[in-house]
Amino acid sequence: MKEYIEQHKESFLEQLKELLRIPSISALPEHKEDVQAAASWLAKSLEDIGMENIEIIQTKGHPILYADWLHAEEKPTVLIYGHYDVQPIDPLELWETPPFEPTIRDEKIYARGATDDKGQMFLYLKAIELLMKKHGTLPVNIKFCIEGEEEIASPNLPPYIDKNKEKLAADAVLISDTSLIDKGQPAICTSLRGALAMELKVRTANTDLHSGSYGGAVPNAVHSIVKILDTFHDENGKIAVQDFYEGVPTPADTIKEEVAQIPFNEVKMKQELGIEDFFGEVGYTPAEQVSIRPTLEINGLVGGFHGEGFKTVIPCESSAKISCRLVGDQKPDKVYEYIERHITKNSPIGAKVELKKLITGDPVSLDSNDPMIQKAADAYEKVYGVRPLYPKAGGSIPIVEVFYRVLNTPVVLMGFGLPNENIHAPNEHFHLENFSKGIETICEYFQTL
Amino acid sequence: MKEYIEQHKESFLEQLKELLRIPSISALPEHKEDVQAAASWLAKSLEDIGMENIEIIQTKGHPILYADWLHAEEKPTVLIYGHYDVQPIDPLELWETPPFEPTIRDEKIYARGATDDKGQMFLYLKAIELLMKKHGTLPVNIKFCIEGEEEIASPNLPPYIDKNKEKLAADAVLISDTSLIDKGQPAICTSLRGALAMELKVRTANTDLHSGSYGGAVPNAVHSIVKILDTFHDENGKIAVQDFYEGVPTPADTIKEEVAQIPFNEVKMKQELGIEDFFGEVGYTPAEQVSIRPTLEINGLVGGFHGEGFKTVIPCESSAKISCRLVGDQKPDKVYEYIERHITKNSPIGAKVELKKLITGDPVSLDSNDPMIQKAADAYEKVYGVRPLYPKAGGSIPIVEVFYRVLNTPVVLMGFGLPNENIHAPNEHFHLENFSKGIETICEYFQTL
Repeated sequence: MKEYIEQHKESFLEQLKELLRIPSISALPEHKEDVQAAASWLAKSLEDIGMENIEIIQTKGHPILYADWLHAEEKPTVLIYGHYDVQPIDPLELWETPPFEPTIRDEKIYARGATDDKGQMFLYLKAIELLMKKHGTLPVNIKFCIEGEEEIASPNLPPYIDKNKEKLAADAVLISDTSLIDKGQPAICTSLRGALAMELKVRTANTDLHSGSYGGAVPNAVHSIVKILDTFHDENGKIAVQDFYEGVPTPADTIKEEVAQIPFNEVKMKQELGIEDFFGEVGYTPAEQVSIRPTLEINGLVGGFHGEGFKTVIPCESSAKISCRLVGDQKPDKVYEYIERHITKNSPIGAKVELKKLITGDPVSLDSNDPMIQKAADAYEKVYGVRPLYPKAGGSIPIVEVFYRVLNTPVVLMGFGLPNENIHAPNEHFHLENFSKGIETICEYFQTL
Repeated sequence: MKEYIEQHKESFLEQLKELLRIPSISALPEHKEDVQAAASWLAKSLEDIGMENIEIIQTKGHPILYADWLHAEEKPTVLIYGHYDVQPIDPLELWETPPFEPTIRDEKIYARGATDDKGQMFLYLKAIELLMKKHGTLPVNIKFCIEGEEEIASPNLPPYIDKNKEKLAADAVLISDTSLIDKGQPAICTSLRGALAMELKVRTANTDLHSGSYGGAVPNAVHSIVKILDTFHDENGKIAVQDFYEGVPTPADTIKEEVAQIPFNEVKMKQELGIEDFFGEVGYTPAEQVSIRPTLEINGLVGGFHGEGFKTVIPCESSAKISCRLVGDQKPDKVYEYIERHITKNSPIGAKVELKKLITGDPVSLDSNDPMIQKAADAYEKVYGVRPLYPKAGGSIPIVEVFYRVLNTPVVLMGFGLPNENIHAPNEHFHLENFSKGIETICEYFQTL
């Protein structure tokens, strides 16, 4: 299979370049037609490799693509998810070659979307094409569900999944939108934290007041918000909001072991980030704190005069952006309620507070012993020569939880990117070594199933 | 004297209008020549009323004016201070008539500087002119020291005073740059709070970090500053910085009585300001809190992402503007040291803090029983029919403390404005009733001395 891939690699890369040339930036209205064009290009490619029942489903935003091939009788069915939209490109001046003119240098392909996620998604199409060419058929049933709104938080996909449970039913959902641990060390991510983002506003008077005339006798909106925000953590870095830890599991030893196996160089990381020390929940390692423990962070804060110079005002309003990362069975809506109650209880005299929910996403954790995951691990081992590790991601990909919950099926997060491929940044790229090995691993996986 | 003033009122107002037409905005470089023009106009007027030794002293900024008349042998000498510069005028669209086209309506003169301080300072010139015309001489020795930089914090006057102690020596410094309590109720302000303004910066990492990848394990610059700022006050509204109250006197009963005599309508004020309740140091009334007690206020705070929407960053820097109002014998430089020490002691792990001093000004309190003040009170009583009250201002006019300390002489703050004459705001004005009564009161005062 390896040789067969090498024979076709050049033409595969030319095809990928075509897709990468389409500036399908979902966040920018002026690129709406480009996003549509990327969907059409993919629909055509799916047809070319033998997929059937191809649909471009229009939504209020960008379209969802569906396709299937269901002729492998009594074999399992896999649902492949990916996204054909990309992040904006600014700052443009930092790109060494233009973001939508794909260029190969040093065995990497450079372009916006090269690894996130056009390049990784494309691997599945080419794996299927090769298997079909070689055997005239496929060893598994395939369904594709590809969206164009991942970079804008997938507003239209969850309702589509909800309404099409039967149609999308599968034995596993396959997603390649994560990364290896490092060159040569594959990874299957088995946990993603959930998210809850909020905005807190505090108001204490009609208008900013002069600190000479009123200072000392009236509430100050910045003092008030400081007082509230300072109640969120105790001296051990634990979140001091009542019931916040409801649903947070005590990590099993096996999970702690899986976390400990992921390389985490504290000394190097401190240097790179310019931090004096790590700082978090007592009783957990930094690697655990950023992956399997929940957080509450203030992401931004503003109030009063903060320009050049000085203004002797008593601020009448202030606001803070606050977010949580959630784990286990924590529910964003419940956690929001607890935080709201906590803020009400801790609001000082004269502070009118208002909390607003902005973003929610459930956490998800997958069992690395699930046979669908273990077979993916076998495929990785065959191609890369080592078994994958099982990292727990600190970030959130809310759609993973939706697939897992609504379709009631394991999700296999097989990453083929590398951690430093500049996703969401200038000079995004994808290593060609993993382009070839990715196709090979997917072929192996399908054959093992 | 009253009739004599009425006879000349029209021509006096025409003269004042000439001065008010000069847009002498000290803060704006494009008005530098206008500030100079106002100084020249005043120098000419001082000459016209018989003043001698007139000097326009150039500085690095705008000029200082000096003039004197020292022929009242064995009589006391008064030094009259005022300023001929004005505040900027924006928002221009809110002015009912243009700020530099003085207009009289409803017995008020409208223009930028009408009450602060061209109008009030002009009263002294006209009082002297009338006395001189009537008697051919003056009952006191007069010195004028008028500046053009009061609205930009008087950078050049204190060193001038320091260098010219002998030249400026007097039995009292007279300043009319404050206000009556209300129509018909005169006031001599006998205390001004000092000021100390600072900026605190906190840094925790090289760059903002992603809250998914690092959330839970690294310091957050907003958390850090919140933790520091929340240590400044205890639960009784007292400032919890060690040694902060050094030099703060326990208010004497007479002082508390003088404060209590000033009308302070708590109910009305709460409504007007839109505050739920007053909030300050336990054990003092709001009227005391804003006048004879020191404060520490956060005037502004910023850190992380605070625009529309959401960004899941862990902020790497934050900053706060902090200021104190000081009383009694508190020294701004000492207080700054105590605050710096306090911040160092209370900085959490991983926070690199930096404090910068921006503004300092000493507090001043004057004894209402001083004969120079009591004679001013007599003059007020003769003209207004009631004795003045002795308010303690919550704000700061640092030059008052400089005169008081360097010349070692009482400062008599005889206000003739009214509290709602829109100083520093659109539609600034000055009531003509107090224009006439002001001139009369000053004449009476000079004759009493």
